[in-house]
Amino acid sequence: MIPDSHLDLLTRPLFAHLATLRPGGMPQVNPMWFTWDGTHLRFTTTTTRRKHRNVTAEPRVAMSINDPDEPYRYLEIRGQVERIDADPGATFFGELARRYALAMDGPPGDAADRVVLVVRPDAVSYQ
Amino acid sequence: MIPDSHLDLLTRPLFAHLATLRPGGMPQVNPMWFTWDGTHLRFTTTTTRRKHRNVTAEPRVAMSINDPDEPYRYLEIRGQVERIDADPGATFFGELARRYALAMDGPPGDAADRVVLVVRPDAVSYQ
Repeated sequence: MIPDSHLDLLTRPLFAHLATLRPGGMPQVNPMWFTWDGTHLRFTTTTTRRKHRNVTAEPRVAMSINDPDEPYRYLEIRGQVERIDADPGATFFGELARRYALAMDGPPGDAADRVVLVVRPDAVSYQ
Repeated sequence: MIPDSHLDLLTRPLFAHLATLRPGGMPQVNPMWFTWDGTHLRFTTTTTRRKHRNVTAEPRVAMSINDPDEPYRYLEIRGQVERIDADPGATFFGELARRYALAMDGPPGDAADRVVLVVRPDAVSYQ
């Protein structure tokens, strides 16, 4: 589903602007770390955040990434939060921190609340 | 409403990731040119595009911008498409092309269909 021409936008440590829906349908969108394993996108959040409440009630999401070196190249993926995995040791958070070269002295203070949003793409658009 | 600390993200020619809602409520999000005049955001699109159909049916939108030089600095604005102005001479498109330093030989081929999405912010979040 992901065109080879734009796969680099998923494998490079770029920021994805993830749109979720609030109760009542208002969209929100924020930059997020992510990974791509060839079939699913994964994002870290915590159970105390609005984003978690949003996707628990309404799993449909969309994300946009453009190339900072060539900003007219972009990839949009629309899909569904297929499941939410617990990440109580913040293992996935740590994987992301390494991917994005963020120096950490240890697990984050909110490790106990960490979860992984596992997103299955349904459709893409790109330029 | 826009914090002084993040106003530069609106005055610099950065790309905004604009989320709109499809009929049925699926979000979509794409990088977009924009302007900010102190009260409204403006985006160019055409009446033939899905984005125009989306906001005609559902005016609630959200956008996210992060600083390419400091990617953890971001600004999210949620709001409403307050009105859609015609731009048949692509005058606003031309203003954006200059703001984003895109060389143009003349008006775009779709000038006759160009419109301006005028967005009134309702809420912001930032980091």
